[in-house]
Amino acid sequence: MLTFLSSQTGVINLARNKIVIIGGVATGPKAAARARRIDPDADITIIDKGELFSYAGCGMPFYIEGLIEDVNELMCTPLGVVRDESFFKNAKNVRVLGKTEAIKINRDSKRITVKNLRIDEIQDIEYDKLILATGAHPVTPPIEGIDLARVYQLNNLKDARAIRETLEKGAKEIVIIGAGLIGLETCGAFVSRGCKVTIVEILDQILPGLLDPTMAALLTNYLKDKGVKILVSEKVTKIEGDEQGYVKKVITDRNEINAEMIIVAVGVRPEAKLAKEAGLKLGDMGGILVNEYLQTNDPNIYAGGDCVENLNLITGINSYVPMGSTANKHGRVIGDNITGGKTTFPGITGTIVFKILNYNVGKTGLGEKHAIDLGYEPITCIRPSPDCAHYHPSTKPFIIKLIVDRKTEKILGGQGLGAGEVVKRIDTLATAIKFGATVKDLVDIDLGYAPPYSTAIDAIAHAANIIRNKIDGLAKGISPIQLKEKIEQNDDFILLDVRTKKEIEKKTFKDKRVNLIPLGSLRDKLNQLPKEKEIIIYCQSSLRAYEAQRIIEGEGFKDVKFLDGGLLAWPYDL
Amino acid sequence: MLTFLSSQTGVINLARNKIVIIGGVATGPKAAARARRIDPDADITIIDKGELFSYAGCGMPFYIEGLIEDVNELMCTPLGVVRDESFFKNAKNVRVLGKTEAIKINRDSKRITVKNLRIDEIQDIEYDKLILATGAHPVTPPIEGIDLARVYQLNNLKDARAIRETLEKGAKEIVIIGAGLIGLETCGAFVSRGCKVTIVEILDQILPGLLDPTMAALLTNYLKDKGVKILVSEKVTKIEGDEQGYVKKVITDRNEINAEMIIVAVGVRPEAKLAKEAGLKLGDMGGILVNEYLQTNDPNIYAGGDCVENLNLITGINSYVPMGSTANKHGRVIGDNITGGKTTFPGITGTIVFKILNYNVGKTGLGEKHAIDLGYEPITCIRPSPDCAHYHPSTKPFIIKLIVDRKTEKILGGQGLGAGEVVKRIDTLATAIKFGATVKDLVDIDLGYAPPYSTAIDAIAHAANIIRNKIDGLAKGISPIQLKEKIEQNDDFILLDVRTKKEIEKKTFKDKRVNLIPLGSLRDKLNQLPKEKEIIIYCQSSLRAYEAQRIIEGEGFKDVKFLDGGLLAWPYDL
Repeated sequence: MLTFLSSQTGVINLARNKIVIIGGVATGPKAAARARRIDPDADITIIDKGELFSYAGCGMPFYIEGLIEDVNELMCTPLGVVRDESFFKNAKNVRVLGKTEAIKINRDSKRITVKNLRIDEIQDIEYDKLILATGAHPVTPPIEGIDLARVYQLNNLKDARAIRETLEKGAKEIVIIGAGLIGLETCGAFVSRGCKVTIVEILDQILPGLLDPTMAALLTNYLKDKGVKILVSEKVTKIEGDEQGYVKKVITDRNEINAEMIIVAVGVRPEAKLAKEAGLKLGDMGGILVNEYLQTNDPNIYAGGDCVENLNLITGINSYVPMGSTANKHGRVIGDNITGGKTTFPGITGTIVFKILNYNVGKTGLGEKHAIDLGYEPITCIRPSPDCAHYHPSTKPFIIKLIVDRKTEKILGGQGLGAGEVVKRIDTLATAIKFGATVKDLVDIDLGYAPPYSTAIDAIAHAANIIRNKIDGLAKGISPIQLKEKIEQNDDFILLDVRTKKEIEKKTFKDKRVNLIPLGSLRDKLNQLPKEKEIIIYCQSSLRAYEAQRIIEGEGFKDVKFLDGGLLAWPYDL
Repeated sequence: MLTFLSSQTGVINLARNKIVIIGGVATGPKAAARARRIDPDADITIIDKGELFSYAGCGMPFYIEGLIEDVNELMCTPLGVVRDESFFKNAKNVRVLGKTEAIKINRDSKRITVKNLRIDEIQDIEYDKLILATGAHPVTPPIEGIDLARVYQLNNLKDARAIRETLEKGAKEIVIIGAGLIGLETCGAFVSRGCKVTIVEILDQILPGLLDPTMAALLTNYLKDKGVKILVSEKVTKIEGDEQGYVKKVITDRNEINAEMIIVAVGVRPEAKLAKEAGLKLGDMGGILVNEYLQTNDPNIYAGGDCVENLNLITGINSYVPMGSTANKHGRVIGDNITGGKTTFPGITGTIVFKILNYNVGKTGLGEKHAIDLGYEPITCIRPSPDCAHYHPSTKPFIIKLIVDRKTEKILGGQGLGAGEVVKRIDTLATAIKFGATVKDLVDIDLGYAPPYSTAIDAIAHAANIIRNKIDGLAKGISPIQLKEKIEQNDDFILLDVRTKKEIEKKTFKDKRVNLIPLGSLRDKLNQLPKEKEIIIYCQSSLRAYEAQRIIEGEGFKDVKFLDGGLLAWPYDL
C-alpha cells in the first residue's frame, strides 16, 4: 500500500480525504481539479494506464486533418503547458500515476489493486472516495483481417498519431467501416487531405440513431458531392492484406474496395469491466448506473464520463451518449460530491454537434422514429432557411427539422445541417427542451436579431410556426418520404410547382403529374386545377407552397398539401 | 369613402372582415400576410405614407457600408421580387396604398381619415379591425445648425441612400452624435469604408442602457484601436456650416470637430401621435399600450412593432425596445387575432445583438445597474474565453458578463462582445431567461460541443460556475472598477500576478504593489506573502487567479480576492 507525505507540511495527515480517480482524461482530471479547489488538504491520486493524460480526445480528427500541427497541442492548457505528471503535481497538487492499470476494486477494504505497467508490480491503494472515469472502448467487430497493419480505431492519441503517419506516408484510398460520429469526423479529415474515401455502413443510412432518414439522406448527398462513396445496408465480410501484412482490400457482401488504410468505427461501449467485477450495477446499455449525484450503488464510489449511462431528460429513461462536454460536467459534479457537496447532474437532452467539411451538423432531443417508439405522436417540419438575412453577404443556407409532440405541443427534438450556422439553433433547442418548452414558447423566445446573425424571425421560430399551423389544421404538409412513395406508386394526383418560370426551367420533378403555375398568377388560374383531385404543391423551401395551399383551399379545394421543406430539402433524385 | 370590388368574384362582399393596417414595414405586411393565410376572404388594406414598403430597415448600415450593393436588395423577397404594390396585390391579395398618410382615427364610426399625398386628397376608409404599425421616429435634438445639408438621421431607405451618396461624393470626416445602437452600427459602416469617425455621446459611456460600464469600456477600447475617436460626457452645442450650407464643423462643450457629414442618432421614440389623438392609452415611455393579444384599449384596434411598449418578462414592467424581430413577431400575432384567433405575445427579455467591424456584441435581460435599481442583489462575473477549443484554428476570443440574482439564483442578464461567437451565447441566455433558469440550470444545459464550436464546458457555463463559486463563498472576485478605485486610492494591499514569467514580461500592472509568483511555484512560495495583508490576485482570464486564491486561502490567509475577468477584461490603462 502506498502512503504519501503531505506536500505542504511534510507530515502524514491521517484525516485527509483520500480520493482515488481511475482515468486521466476529461472526467478524472476535472474531478481532481474541482476537489482540490474545495478541499486544499485532500489527498488526490489519478491513475491511468496510458502515459498521456487530460488530452483533448475530441480534437483528434483535426489533428488527423492537419489543422492542428502538433499532437502536443491537444495535451496543452490554453497557455501551452503540457498537462503531464509534474503539471498536475505543481499546479494542482494532484498525484498522477501513469502507466498504472487498476485491476481490482476491493470495496470492503476500500482499496484498489493496481499494476504498475512500467515495472510490472502490483500494489494496493486506499481510498475514501473512488471515482471511476474509465471511459469507453471501441467495438471491434469480428471481421477476418481486422488485425492487419493500417487497420485503425480512433480511441486515443496513439491511434491518431498512427493514422496521421500513415497518411503522411501517402495512403490515399481509405475505407471507413461505420458511418457514425467518429466515422464521419474522420471522413471529413481524410477528404480535406485529398483522400478517396469509402464509407461502409451495415444499417440503411449514415448516422443511424443520430439523424432522421431524410436529414441523413441530405448529408449523404452533400458527401457524395464531395467525392465520398457511401455504401449503406452493406456488410464488411473480410479485410485482405498484401504480403507485408498491410491492408489491401475490403470485401463486403456486395463489393470489393481497394484500401490503403481502414478506420473501424462501429461504435463505442462503456468501459465498465472493473465496475462490474466489483458488483457495481450496470444499465441496459452496459454503462455504470449512477444516481443524480453520480454515485454508484456503492456510496463511496462515483462514476462519470463515457463509462456511465445518463438520464435522458425528455424520456426519463437512461441513454448512452458519450460526450466530452458531459464528461467534463460530470467531473465537476463529482469533485463537489467527494468533498462534501451535494451537487446534482440532472441529465442530458442528447445533444450532438459536429463539423464535416463545410457542413455544420447537429441534433438534440429525440428523433422522429425514437419519439414514435416511445409512444409520442410526433408532428414534424423540415425547413430550409438562410442562416441570416438573405441580403447579407455572409448568408449561408441550412436545413432544420423540428419534432414536436402533438398532444402536449412540447418540443421533442431538433436536427440541423448545412453550411449555415446550425449549432446556435441546436443550442437554443437544447435549452428550450431542458425547460419543457412548447412549440409556442419557441416562437416567443426573444432571440438576438441583426442581419448578420439571423432572419427577423429565426428559422427555428419559423419551423415552430409551421408546426403550429399544422396542429391548427392550417398547413398540410407531406414529407419527402411520403411523396416519394406516392410518386413511385403511380398515385393519381397533381404535383403543382408554384415557383417562377426561371426557377422551374432550371430544375423540377420529371413527372407527368407536374403542373406549373407560379404563385403570383395562381389566383387567376385556379380554374385550371381540378377540384376533385389531390394536389401536392411544392416550391423551393415550402413557403410559397404553403401560401398556395391556403389560396387553393380558400376556393373550396379539399385535398391540398405542400411538400415539407420543398426542393431544397428533397433528398432524392427528381 | 372607398369601396372595393372583391378581386376573386367581382362582387362586393359586405360580410368580409375589413382590415386596415397603418404602416408598411415589418409588422404591417406581416400581419397582412398572416391574416390573408387564415382568412382568404378578408379585405386587407395597408396604408403607408412612403413609397417603399416592407423593406429591411435593419439592413441599412450594410447598404451604407457597401456590403449590399443595391438598395433594392433590401426591398426584395429572398427570390429577388421587389415587394411593391403589385407584389402585394398578386401574391398576397393585399391592397397597398402608398403615399397615403393616416391623419385621424374615428373610433366611433370605425373609419380612418387618410390623405393621398400624391393628389392631396382626403378620404375615409372603414375598418372592422385597425392595426397601428406606425413605427418609431428619431429624436431630433434642438441643436443649432441641425438643418444644415449633410446632417442625417437614419430612419428610412431615403436617408440611407442620401448617406451613401454623400460617402460616394467623398465625405471622409464624419461625426456621429449619439453612441447608441444606430450610432455604432453606422460607425462600423463608415470605418469599413475608410472614414475618420468621431462619436460624441452626452452620457458617460457608449451604448448606455445596453452595456454595463466595463463592457462598454472594452468596446470603446476596441473602437479606439480601429481609429474611432470617442468623446463621452460631451455635449454638442452647435453645428456649423460653410457658405453652401453644407456641414463643416461640430462644436461641443469641449471640442471642435471637423465634419463633412453628421449622423444624428440620439434615440428613437414610438410614433404614437395618431393613437394618442384617438384617445388610445400610451405608456410611460410614450409607446402605445397593448395587452398580451396586442390589443389597445379599443378592442378593434391592435398595435405592434416599434410604436408599442413591450412587457419585460424579467421585471414584469413595460419597456421600450424597438426591434425588427419583435415587430415581425407582433405582425403574426396580430394577423391571428384580427381573424378570430387568440394568440398571445408574452413579452421580451430585451435581447439586442449587433456587429461592429469584427466584433460581435449582444445583451439580453437586465444590466447590473438596472437590476440594482429594481431591487435585485446582482452577483456578476466577467469571463474572457475562447469561443471554441483553444487548439482549433478557428478559435476567437470573446468576453461574457453574466448577471444573477443572489436571492433566487436566477439569471437576470448577460452581455457579450468580441471577435468570437457571441450571439449563440446570448440566444442561449435569452432562452434560459425566458424559462426563469437559475445559474445551476445554465450549467446543466446539454449544449452542443465539438472543438470548432465551443469549449467542452462552454463559456456561459463557466461563467455560471464562477457565480456559483461566488455564491458559495469559494470564489471571491473584485470587479475592474473596484480594483481601479483601490489602486487610485493608494490602498495598502498586494497585487499578485500569478502568470508565467513570459506573460508577465509582456504586460502587467505598473504598480509598486505588484508581486510576481507564477501559479506553478505558488505552493512553494506562500511564505513570501504576508498573512495580514489584503491580496488581490490576477492573471490573464482569472482562471489561475481563482485557483491561486483557493491555494492561498488553504494556507489560512483570510483576505484574498481575484480580479474578475483578469487582464483580458481590464478596460483601463495598466
